Amino acid sequence: MPELLSDERLDHLLGKEGRIIQSPTVFSYSLDAALLAQFAWVPIQQGKLVDLCAGNGAIPLFLSYRTKGTITGLEIQPRLVDMAERSIQMNEKQDQLQMVEGDVKEAGKQLGYGLYDAVTCNPPYFLANESSNRNASEHYTIARHEVLCTLEDCIRSAADLLKQGGKTAFVHRPERLLDIVTLMRQYRLEPKRMQLIYPKEGKEANMLLIEGIKDAKPGLKVLAPFIVYEQDDTYTLQMRNQFNV
Amino acid sequence: MPELLSDERLDHLLGKEGRIIQSPTVFSYSLDAALLAQFAWVPIQQGKLVDLCAGNGAIPLFLSYRTKGTITGLEIQPRLVDMAERSIQMNEKQDQLQMVEGDVKEAGKQLGYGLYDAVTCNPPYFLANESSNRNASEHYTIARHEVLCTLEDCIRSAADLLKQGGKTAFVHRPERLLDIVTLMRQYRLEPKRMQLIYPKEGKEANMLLIEGIKDAKPGLKVLAPFIVYEQDDTYTLQMRNQFNV
Repeated sequence: MPELLSDERLDHLLGKEGRIIQSPTVFSYSLDAALLAQFAWVPIQQGKLVDLCAGNGAIPLFLSYRTKGTITGLEIQPRLVDMAERSIQMNEKQDQLQMVEGDVKEAGKQLGYGLYDAVTCNPPYFLANESSNRNASEHYTIARHEVLCTLEDCIRSAADLLKQGGKTAFVHRPERLLDIVTLMRQYRLEPKRMQLIYPKEGKEANMLLIEGIKDAKPGLKVLAPFIVYEQDDTYTLQMRNQFNV
Repeated sequence: MPELLSDERLDHLLGKEGRIIQSPTVFSYSLDAALLAQFAWVPIQQGKLVDLCAGNGAIPLFLSYRTKGTITGLEIQPRLVDMAERSIQMNEKQDQLQMVEGDVKEAGKQLGYGLYDAVTCNPPYFLANESSNRNASEHYTIARHEVLCTLEDCIRSAADLLKQGGKTAFVHRPERLLDIVTLMRQYRLEPKRMQLIYPKEGKEANMLLIEGIKDAKPGLKVLAPFIVYEQDDTYTLQMRNQFNV
């Protein structure tokens, strides 16, 4: 058993045998991370992946069940890097996963330009000045608001890291769709595949998954909608099939 | 009964009591038009609307069941203008609907700048050089391929026609989403509401409905998905409710 700090707990990785260290006051992963890790393209047998804004390492851990490639999680908050490193050890995935403490704005300089097959990112969703949930801890604020990095920083760094033809996947709020696709094109990450996540049938989408390919030709596919909950708040069949829950 | 030319037939307007003159060799409306006319915002009691690329008048006819405003259909092909005019007479809607023969590129000059509350457009979907279905008649080719007007022409003209705060709605292929939203922003039609149409559950989207508001603030909502057919090729409940079929 890893050492847990006072406010930490050991949670399941949704639908996996693995565990992850979380904290209600510091950081807990949300469904967004699990969905992004299922949506993202990964090289199966070998390859190099990066997860930007890696937080407590949820996406690298999820991805490790889909690829034998090596995955680097880049995270700016030392406390989250520490939580992620202990989760990696606990799951005995040190040979495949590593965390790097660093600034997403310097990702290319820190991790190397044009070397990676795939980059994922669950960036801060809210503008620095948006009030939504800014009452939470400073850890959450940094993870959720664009105080230390913007969407443009994330997209530019994903482009810096990727090989030509490499693939990147982002999760974000549908409200930011225009910004995302405009910035992706600006940084030569052509949007190729998109999926909208709906909380329930008949509701507006509340999440957006999007894949870009570096220097690819234009042409976007919109995948079948993904609906999380039935009207009675149980998981849909789609959700249960996706995560084995 | 109106005079029908040799290759013409009288079809129902999906779910309405009205009829429309169509022709398998010249032009027939498709579900795209019916869905756009349901999706588009309209002023209920009074106002001025334009439908660009109006074809045989399907969208103006559909819209006339939702608004008491006046609707002008702009269409470049004289044969389609003639079909539309005869359909308007047949449905006794001459006081509300008029067709104008003209070029979408000149819409502002021809119909007046900044005068309209709402503009709809079901533009040609395919690039001029795309081969898809270019084996059909010249009438269909002009309606379906960007030979006489491009997406940018349609969006620029919608912006020209609209008052500030006026609303425009387009239907297009999801593959062109990026072009649409980029051009809409360029011409000050901020994308505010989007709905994806899926032929069946589990399939990729094959149509995109999008609304822009002239000079509005950013912030896009993605409505619940709209699915047309059940697995057994009957209409979904959603489709039957939408069109009373």
